[in-house]
Amino acid sequence: MEEIQDKIQFQLSNELIEKVEILVEDYNDNELKLLLNEYHYADIAEILDELDVDAAVYIIKLLDSGLTSDILMELDEDNREDILKNLSAKEIAEEVEELDTDDAADIIAELPEDRQAEVISKIEDEEHREEITELLTYDNDTAGSLMAKELVKVYETWTVAGCLRRIRGQAKEVTRVHSIYVVDKEEKLIGRLSLKDLIVAKSDQKIAEISNSNVDYVNVTEDVEDVAKIMAKYDLEAIPVVDENQTLLGRITIDDIVDVLREEAEKDYQLAAGITQDVEADDSILELTRARLPWLFLGLIGGIGAFIIMYYFEESLPKEAVILFLFTPLIAAMAGNVGVQSSAIIVQGLANDDVKGSINTRLIKEMLLAALNGIILSLFLFLFVFAWEQEFKLALAISVSLVVVIIIAGLIGTFIPLFLDKRGIDPAIATGPFITTSNDILGILLYFWIAKLILGF
Amino acid sequence: MEEIQDKIQFQLSNELIEKVEILVEDYNDNELKLLLNEYHYADIAEILDELDVDAAVYIIKLLDSGLTSDILMELDEDNREDILKNLSAKEIAEEVEELDTDDAADIIAELPEDRQAEVISKIEDEEHREEITELLTYDNDTAGSLMAKELVKVYETWTVAGCLRRIRGQAKEVTRVHSIYVVDKEEKLIGRLSLKDLIVAKSDQKIAEISNSNVDYVNVTEDVEDVAKIMAKYDLEAIPVVDENQTLLGRITIDDIVDVLREEAEKDYQLAAGITQDVEADDSILELTRARLPWLFLGLIGGIGAFIIMYYFEESLPKEAVILFLFTPLIAAMAGNVGVQSSAIIVQGLANDDVKGSINTRLIKEMLLAALNGIILSLFLFLFVFAWEQEFKLALAISVSLVVVIIIAGLIGTFIPLFLDKRGIDPAIATGPFITTSNDILGILLYFWIAKLILGF
Repeated sequence: MEEIQDKIQFQLSNELIEKVEILVEDYNDNELKLLLNEYHYADIAEILDELDVDAAVYIIKLLDSGLTSDILMELDEDNREDILKNLSAKEIAEEVEELDTDDAADIIAELPEDRQAEVISKIEDEEHREEITELLTYDNDTAGSLMAKELVKVYETWTVAGCLRRIRGQAKEVTRVHSIYVVDKEEKLIGRLSLKDLIVAKSDQKIAEISNSNVDYVNVTEDVEDVAKIMAKYDLEAIPVVDENQTLLGRITIDDIVDVLREEAEKDYQLAAGITQDVEADDSILELTRARLPWLFLGLIGGIGAFIIMYYFEESLPKEAVILFLFTPLIAAMAGNVGVQSSAIIVQGLANDDVKGSINTRLIKEMLLAALNGIILSLFLFLFVFAWEQEFKLALAISVSLVVVIIIAGLIGTFIPLFLDKRGIDPAIATGPFITTSNDILGILLYFWIAKLILGF
Repeated sequence: MEEIQDKIQFQLSNELIEKVEILVEDYNDNELKLLLNEYHYADIAEILDELDVDAAVYIIKLLDSGLTSDILMELDEDNREDILKNLSAKEIAEEVEELDTDDAADIIAELPEDRQAEVISKIEDEEHREEITELLTYDNDTAGSLMAKELVKVYETWTVAGCLRRIRGQAKEVTRVHSIYVVDKEEKLIGRLSLKDLIVAKSDQKIAEISNSNVDYVNVTEDVEDVAKIMAKYDLEAIPVVDENQTLLGRITIDDIVDVLREEAEKDYQLAAGITQDVEADDSILELTRARLPWLFLGLIGGIGAFIIMYYFEESLPKEAVILFLFTPLIAAMAGNVGVQSSAIIVQGLANDDVKGSINTRLIKEMLLAALNGIILSLFLFLFVFAWEQEFKLALAISVSLVVVIIIAGLIGTFIPLFLDKRGIDPAIATGPFITTSNDILGILLYFWIAKLILGF
């Protein structure tokens, strides 16, 4: 059991990386193979992610393509790109031969366009080549882009015994048999059965007798997020994909959906934090700047907008009103916080499909909620300002403004994502800097306007 | 195929809900059964989530417990709680009887403590009762709390034919057979095989000959997030769970992991948005207030802190410095935005295990990054202020402050989550209002201090 223990508790260490680097420098191929073959491909990928490109390419060329194709799939995207640049079209085609069609198509799609055709032409297995070419035709973000052609398919007229005999051949090519799909003679999906059903059935029964006609499926053009929702809702581990004629085209497995859910969550999180591109902590400073600067620039423009508003109020207000300016960071921060909270709840509700009722009921609810929060917070602020300045009217002006600003900020935070969603735009872009900045400016404007009114300047 | 089409395209409509409500009011049991039996349990759960408790309880009592137990699992947690309150211990036990042990234990764990023992004592199947009791002993957030006792287990000494015969019995109880686990005579996990391996093997082969000793597993005390990482990394659809003696205790399936990943992502997202509890858009105003008010209160305290700082600077600054106060919202917003960005990148990197290197290298990188962003933004701000006010020194003071504030905010945003993580605290709490508020205050303090220094007041 020693080997197993190692695998689960795999911890990337500097010693291990150095050991590998030295073996590569010494061209010690035998030792290198012996060492790396002890590890899972996902672990080897972690090691390779830490090496420089030349060493990683050396190892990819050294190891068996059955193993290296899996390693390639697990690498960091940037590192995979660098490594593939150093492999010939023939070498990439050899890796691709080993992969399931969905992974193969993903890797080829990452290549520059001129190399794609070259690599495809070098794939020797004709069926594999045609299937990959088909997969490359589907749009990103559709079910077609996630599906694999590998599946186990039986005809309704077969017997259990004949079926078992025949699927032995098919099953060898399929990593995991979740379901066996039953088709009619026109290749249309008409049912499914599990390996378990097949084992439990009598060997002379017809497939049509034991198959379950109650099969969930998705259309090849369906949006991947909808596919993820369907699979999560109905607890499916694989779902067949059909075209508009119900012809069985492929299947999508739950592991691809796990990736979709994760990427979706990361994207929403990054948008909320004001990061535009998919970046990681280990990306270069230039990449990180490109992802962060646009939102910061938006914040800067917002701050300049706030300055201009305050500038004009400052000119029209008497000198004793300077105290009002000292509360602008408070007002702006509260407007931003409330806006982010309410938009985040709507964005998450939309993602989980549990935002029910009309936009109007939503807005009325948020108004009540914001009013409740606003009144509690304003009472506290009133007491503070009154205790500090001993001026009733000033304390009143500032705290009434705060209630109004909180309500308006909550309404904007609720309305914008709902509005974007209705327009078919990803509501997640509404959270974060976008809502904070617009609420900052509007909050400050409302604040001075209301304070001026109450103080009677 | 009509029925299938309906199922995938299930769209909850007001008409359908009204139809169900009328049937419940009329006690029209036959029609109700006919109508609901057309739908998938996940869809029925969506309908029940929209009904009032009495109607939902009526339907749960009406339908077959094989179906209602699945419906219960899919209900909104609050609604499930309400419905269970209206069922007797005996009725709950009947539902639990139909569920897999992991779901059964989850439902019982949601009950008030005094009802738990009562429900368990009413479970008729002794093995099921004991297994559920065992599962209830495991801590939340450990592998034990996620695992199910249902699995297919074979002994290494069995033959393929004997094995097929015997697992027919076991497999009937297991919804999905991902892997068959091989144990020795002491029930220790020593390998695995797939149904596919079994079908492809010759019937007189011994299990030991065809099984794969290279089996991943987790310990029953392992943290669920680590289990999720392992399963995602190694692309596992199920993983066996063992105790410290390697004895096979149960298995965790990928659908549970999908839920863990989703909850984790939602929690991080909510923390970043300043929402403390797990709330949904459809929760009551009181629940939503309880989740939102604490963070807003933190923001208010921060705003008051900013006021106090500005108050003292205002007293010590000459009247012509009032222009400085008009830029505080800008400075505060930039400090907040930069802090949220850098903490979000670290939080996400920690979640994905790709934050490498020491805290120092991290901080140096963030410093360079923040300096680059800061200089670009400050140049722009310098030009604006100079164009607006025609005062070189003022423009310089404000823009130099901005660079410093951005760098410090970036360092704080990077350091705090890394520090929390080292201390074993969830770094996600560092994002959102916490970092925004502390950066607001510190940013304003630094701003006035630097501006005062440069302007020579």
